[in-house]
Amino acid sequence: MQSSSNPQVSIVVTAYDWVPSFAQGYVRDLRVRWALNEAKLPYEARLIDHRQKSEPEHLARQPFGQVPAIDMDGGSMFESGAIVWTIAEASDHLLPKGPAERRQALTWSFAALNTVEPVVARLVEIAFFLDDEELKAKLRPGAVSAVETRLAQLQAALGERDFLVGEFFAPDILMATVLRNLGHGDVLAGFPALERYLERCLARPAFEKALAEQVEPFARNAARYEVAA
Amino acid sequence: MQSSSNPQVSIVVTAYDWVPSFAQGYVRDLRVRWALNEAKLPYEARLIDHRQKSEPEHLARQPFGQVPAIDMDGGSMFESGAIVWTIAEASDHLLPKGPAERRQALTWSFAALNTVEPVVARLVEIAFFLDDEELKAKLRPGAVSAVETRLAQLQAALGERDFLVGEFFAPDILMATVLRNLGHGDVLAGFPALERYLERCLARPAFEKALAEQVEPFARNAARYEVAA
Repeated sequence: MQSSSNPQVSIVVTAYDWVPSFAQGYVRDLRVRWALNEAKLPYEARLIDHRQKSEPEHLARQPFGQVPAIDMDGGSMFESGAIVWTIAEASDHLLPKGPAERRQALTWSFAALNTVEPVVARLVEIAFFLDDEELKAKLRPGAVSAVETRLAQLQAALGERDFLVGEFFAPDILMATVLRNLGHGDVLAGFPALERYLERCLARPAFEKALAEQVEPFARNAARYEVAA
Repeated sequence: MQSSSNPQVSIVVTAYDWVPSFAQGYVRDLRVRWALNEAKLPYEARLIDHRQKSEPEHLARQPFGQVPAIDMDGGSMFESGAIVWTIAEASDHLLPKGPAERRQALTWSFAALNTVEPVVARLVEIAFFLDDEELKAKLRPGAVSAVETRLAQLQAALGERDFLVGEFFAPDILMATVLRNLGHGDVLAGFPALERYLERCLARPAFEKALAEQVEPFARNAARYEVAA
């Protein structure tokens, strides 16, 4: 574990020290790192290995044995959606000012994680985690169709706007990381306005920085996992 | 559509006028009605039929063609998680006072909908929406195992507490409605502390009232759907 060495930095994000290549750049601490970079809040990473994630110290912080978790303001919390929303509340950058627009931002934050992410995660699961080719062939059409239904509705809802609630805010971090999980497959290609939306989101310097910060330790720690495997 | 007839009531919840029997008492406006009853905020229902859910008027309010949506304070929003959180913020009843406990409440609200609900929904989908018995037999063990993993972690996290953040708050509305979707099957029976947690939540008068309010119009409108079917 790396510990916070700089007394000026009071925010610590728990993330993995290494993940397999298909997951590199896609672990959910990316959302939190992105929000912190947008908010210009300095942070350090507490990197845990795959043994530590099931140990009591980590489970006290993240009871489902996942990442991310965050220590900030003397307390700790988990769930990327909750953390991104909390960072947004603590920042001037990631929420609209008006109460009605703020409720729209909350609406779209939950929509990203509770309405769009489940169908996307299902398709990703079939593509990456299912070995049985016959089963894959049976399940994929329905899963693609469920994603396409949601994407069509999302594209219609986005309309001519650049971002979900006008300007770039917290819900765009969540929605963009969900859509990005579709990868460069052909599903998103059917929705050109969403492809452009995703490109606008990912073009932000804070995203690039967050991505680099997530993957940076992976190369350094790869050798240890290759020996262990 | 029933429209708000009482000028004193400024909160309107959009819900269905009828659903098939297996879904009665399980539509997600239940969460919103429960939160409103806990907060003692009077509301009226705008009931839509299954044609109206795909029409522009509803899609402007709920772009995914689902329920619930809510009109309150002159604006409208959707996503049951976002609405329950907003009702909690507007109420003295459903959030802890301290900022650290409030963050825990937000954490558990997202955990209910983004970590626990996806695995529960997957199991419910296999049980209720899959006709292919061979496929069902292939998929069910993995889906049960995924639910059991989460329930074991949730039960450990709950520990000796009565509710997720000490007292009954917004995240308990979300988590209880998620766990309740497991029904009286044998999965939850393996986790007696969670069964008792769920019973404590569902014993609240505001839950009973919300449930009665959701199902009340269904009997009245059933005849119309039976003729149409």
